[in-house]
Amino acid sequence: MAKRALISVSDKEGILEFAKELVALDYEILSTGGTKKMLQENNVPVTAVDEVTKFPEILDGRVKTLNPLIHGGLLGKFDDPSHQAQMTEHGIEPIEIVCVNLYPFVETISKPDVTWDDAIENIDIGGPTMLRSAAKNHQYVTVIVDAKDYAHVLEELKVQGATTLETRKRLAAKVFRHTAAYDSYISNYLTEEEFPENLTMTYELKQTLRYGENPHQKAAFYQKRLSSDFSLAYATQLHGKELSYNNIQDGNAALQIVKEFSMPAAVAVKHMNPCGVGTGATIEEAFDKAYEADPTSIFGGIIALNREVDAATAEKLSGIFLEIIIAPSFTEEALSILTKKKNIRLLTINFAQEKQDQLKVVSVEGGLLVQEEDTFGFADSDIKVVTNREPSEEEWAALKLGWAVVKHVKSNAIVVTDTQMTLGVGAGQMNRVGSAKIALEQAGEKAKGAALASDAFFPMNDTVETAAAAGITAIIQPGGSIKDQDSIDKANEFGIAMVFTGVRHFKH
Amino acid sequence: MAKRALISVSDKEGILEFAKELVALDYEILSTGGTKKMLQENNVPVTAVDEVTKFPEILDGRVKTLNPLIHGGLLGKFDDPSHQAQMTEHGIEPIEIVCVNLYPFVETISKPDVTWDDAIENIDIGGPTMLRSAAKNHQYVTVIVDAKDYAHVLEELKVQGATTLETRKRLAAKVFRHTAAYDSYISNYLTEEEFPENLTMTYELKQTLRYGENPHQKAAFYQKRLSSDFSLAYATQLHGKELSYNNIQDGNAALQIVKEFSMPAAVAVKHMNPCGVGTGATIEEAFDKAYEADPTSIFGGIIALNREVDAATAEKLSGIFLEIIIAPSFTEEALSILTKKKNIRLLTINFAQEKQDQLKVVSVEGGLLVQEEDTFGFADSDIKVVTNREPSEEEWAALKLGWAVVKHVKSNAIVVTDTQMTLGVGAGQMNRVGSAKIALEQAGEKAKGAALASDAFFPMNDTVETAAAAGITAIIQPGGSIKDQDSIDKANEFGIAMVFTGVRHFKH
Repeated sequence: MAKRALISVSDKEGILEFAKELVALDYEILSTGGTKKMLQENNVPVTAVDEVTKFPEILDGRVKTLNPLIHGGLLGKFDDPSHQAQMTEHGIEPIEIVCVNLYPFVETISKPDVTWDDAIENIDIGGPTMLRSAAKNHQYVTVIVDAKDYAHVLEELKVQGATTLETRKRLAAKVFRHTAAYDSYISNYLTEEEFPENLTMTYELKQTLRYGENPHQKAAFYQKRLSSDFSLAYATQLHGKELSYNNIQDGNAALQIVKEFSMPAAVAVKHMNPCGVGTGATIEEAFDKAYEADPTSIFGGIIALNREVDAATAEKLSGIFLEIIIAPSFTEEALSILTKKKNIRLLTINFAQEKQDQLKVVSVEGGLLVQEEDTFGFADSDIKVVTNREPSEEEWAALKLGWAVVKHVKSNAIVVTDTQMTLGVGAGQMNRVGSAKIALEQAGEKAKGAALASDAFFPMNDTVETAAAAGITAIIQPGGSIKDQDSIDKANEFGIAMVFTGVRHFKH
Repeated sequence: MAKRALISVSDKEGILEFAKELVALDYEILSTGGTKKMLQENNVPVTAVDEVTKFPEILDGRVKTLNPLIHGGLLGKFDDPSHQAQMTEHGIEPIEIVCVNLYPFVETISKPDVTWDDAIENIDIGGPTMLRSAAKNHQYVTVIVDAKDYAHVLEELKVQGATTLETRKRLAAKVFRHTAAYDSYISNYLTEEEFPENLTMTYELKQTLRYGENPHQKAAFYQKRLSSDFSLAYATQLHGKELSYNNIQDGNAALQIVKEFSMPAAVAVKHMNPCGVGTGATIEEAFDKAYEADPTSIFGGIIALNREVDAATAEKLSGIFLEIIIAPSFTEEALSILTKKKNIRLLTINFAQEKQDQLKVVSVEGGLLVQEEDTFGFADSDIKVVTNREPSEEEWAALKLGWAVVKHVKSNAIVVTDTQMTLGVGAGQMNRVGSAKIALEQAGEKAKGAALASDAFFPMNDTVETAAAAGITAIIQPGGSIKDQDSIDKANEFGIAMVFTGVRHFKH
C-alpha cells in the first residue's frame, strides 16, 4: 500500500516540485481545491479528498477535510493494534505527510479596502485543524507548514526512507507556533477591548542579535506585522555592521525624539537619553547645534536626523566617532564620505510615515506591563501662563523645544534649552532638584536667559530657586503640586515666566 | 424543529444549570464523552454526537466531532439558500449554540511529574476546531468558551429569544483569544529554539490600571502563567490602594535588587533606581542603613525588605512617607502599626521561591526586543585583582555590595558603598564620569575609604582620578577597555585596590 501525503496550500511556492518528488518516492497525493487543480494541470497524479471522505466539498468550501476519514488518518497511532483495528474497520488509511498552509488572513486584513466579510471568510478552519491533528500525532506524522522545510523532508525521505522523530517534533512545534500566531492575528482583529482577559501577541524574527544589553545575555529583535514603517524593524541599512541590542534601543529613542520636529533637527543619544538635540534652518545647522549641545557625550553615540544628509553635514559627522546615523536619505556624495568609515552604521527610514498609536509592553518579573504610548504633544496640552510675566517669543520657542525633548528623557528629567538646542540634560535622578542641578551645571553660562523644562511638577520651590540662580528666565512644567503657589511666587520674585501644561511626561 | 446546542466541556463548572436552562428554552442538547454522561446522570435529555455523525467515537476519543455533519451545522450560513439546500441534502441541521472548553493543557504541563505523552494527549483537537468553526460563523452561531458567559447568553435567549450579533461577535473574539493562548502555550512547550521565527506570547489580565506612566496613558498589568511566585503579579496585598503602573515598575526593581542578598537587606527605589540599599544583622538595621543612604530621595519611595517586618522596623517605616512596603511577611504588631497609614500599600511576596530565568521583552517602535535576563552574579564572575594592592576584607565586602547594586542601576551607573550600604548612587548619565561625580558628591565625606562600583569599564582614567580625589580606596569594574592600563596605573598611583569582573552590567 502506497504511503499518503495530503497537500493543501494557499501559498503554492515550491509545491509542484515537492509533490513530484513525493510521487517519485511512491507517495499517493491527496488534495483538494486549487492545489488539486494545479497539480493535475501539471500532470501530477492526485486523489481528490472527497474520494477519501466519500463526502463532497460543501458550503463554498467551508467543509472539505473536516471528516473522520481524514482526521482518523492523521490522528491514529499507526503502530497501536487497537487504533489499527478501528482504522481498518472504518476504512481509514494513515496519512504520513501533511503539507498545508493557511488562508492568508493577515494579508487580507492588511489590504486598505478589506471588508469584514472578506476578513471572516479568510479565517481558515480546515487548514489549522489538519495541521494541529498532524502535529499532535508527530510521533507518526510529518507536518509541513513552511515551504522552507520541503527540501529537508525530501532529503530525509530519500536517504532514510522516513523522517526522523526529531524532525517531526521540530516541525510539529513550528505548526503550533504558526497556528498560535494565526489565531493571535485573528483575535486582535476581532477584539474591541483594549485590555482583554487574555493578551496574546505575536512577532516575527527580524534577526538574532550577537547579544543583549550585555555579552552574557542572548537576545533577538522581532518585528511586528501590520506596523508602521517608521521603525528600525523596517529600516534599510546601507552600510556597516549589524545593529546591536543597545543600538536598537538607542536608535529607537533617537527616532522618537527627532519625530517631534517638523523643522530640520538632529538628535544624539547615549544610553537611551538625548545628550544633544539641535534644530536649524538646514540639517547641517541642526547637527552643529546637536553637537555643540554636548561635544563630549556624543562620542560613541547615535544620531538621527530628519532631513537628507548632504555632503557638508556628512563631512562633519565623519569627524566624530558615531555608532549609527539614521536619516530619511543620504546624498550620493554624503554616502561616499561616510562609507569610508568602516565601523559606522548608516540607515534610512521612512520618515514620511506617521507613527501608529500602539500599545507598548515591558516585562516585569512574572508579568507584563502594557500601556498606550505617550503621544501627547505641546499642541494637545492646555497651556497656561501662571506667572506675572508672559514668556517672550524667544522664550516660547525655547520652552516648546524643551517640552518636546523632556518627554523623552528618563525621569526625573530636566532639560535646559535655548531657541535652537538643548544646553543641559538632567536625566534619571531620584530627586528632581538633582536632575535640575545636572542640567544647569552642564548649561553653565548658557543657562543665562535660557528655558527650563521639567517632566513633572515641582514638589517644592527649590527647583525654581536653583534655576533662577543659574539665570533661567522661563520654565515649563505640568503644574499640579499642592505647592504650586510657592513655585509661582518664587518665579515671580525672580521675574521668571512660568508655563503649566497640565500634562506629565514620566518615562522610565 | 428544536434548536440545537452542542455542549462539550472539560471544566464542568456551571454546565448542568446552563444545560437545564437551555432544555427549558426548548433546545436539543448534543453532547459527548464525560459531559454527556454527567448530563444524563442528572436527567438532562441529551443526544449523543455519534447519533448525529452516524460515526462512532474512535481512536480513544481523538476523533469524535471532526465530522461534516457537525461542522456543516456550525459553518453553514443558515439564511443562505444554497447553504440551506446543501445542508438539507446531506442531512445537516444547524447548531445554534456551541459551548466548549478545552483539555487542560496548561494545567497538565504545570504538574511537576508531567510526562511527554500526557502533555501531547492533552492537546485538544476537536474542541478548538468546534470553537473556531462556530466563532468564524458568529453571524449565526453563539459560541461560549468561558463559564462566565453562560448567564448573559441565557438572559438574551430568555428576553429576546436569541443572542444579539454584538454578543455573538464579542464571544467569537473571545474564542480566538482563547485558541491563540492555547496554541501559544503548546508551542512554547514544544519549541526548543530560544528565538524561533515566530514568537507568540500570552498573558492573562491581572488588573487594568488607573493609568500608565502618566495619567493620559491607559494601561494594564498582565500576569504570566507558569511563572515564579516571586513576582508582583503573584503578591498578596494586605493594605492600601491598588498598585499603579509606576508602583509596579518600581516595586519590581526593588524586588530584583533585594533578591541579591541573603543577609537581611532593605532597598528603597525611586524612578526604578535604588536610592538607598542597606544591609545589617537585623532587618531593622538594614532599613536604618537604607534610610541613612539617602534620607531625601526615599520620600515617596518604595521599600522592599527580605525579612519579616517587625514592630521596631514598622515604627521607623511609618515615620516616613512611603508608597509601598514589600516583604515576605509582617508581624501582627507591625501590621497594626502600618495599617494606621491609609495611603501606604503593604504587600507580601514569596521570597522562598527562586526567580526563574525568563526572557524579558520591551517594545520598540514596530517591534520587540527580547533578551535573557541579566542573572550573572559576583560568584559567577572571573574576579581578578589588577592593582598592586589587594582589597582588605572590609573593602571586599563593600565591593561585593556595590557590584550587587550597580547591576540594577540605570546605565551609566556608578555606586559608592561601604560594607553595609550605598553611600552614593550615580544613575543614567550619558557619560561615565558624570555618574561618578553624582555618586561621589552624594557620598561626600563618607567616600573616604569607601568602594566604588562601575557597571561598565572606564574608557579613560578620569573616573579613577575623580574617585581618588574623593577618597575612594577600592574599585570594582568589568575591565576590558583598551585603556585599562591607564586606569590601573592611576589606581596604583593612589594606592587604590582595583578588581576586574570581566562582566558588564548595562541596564536601561
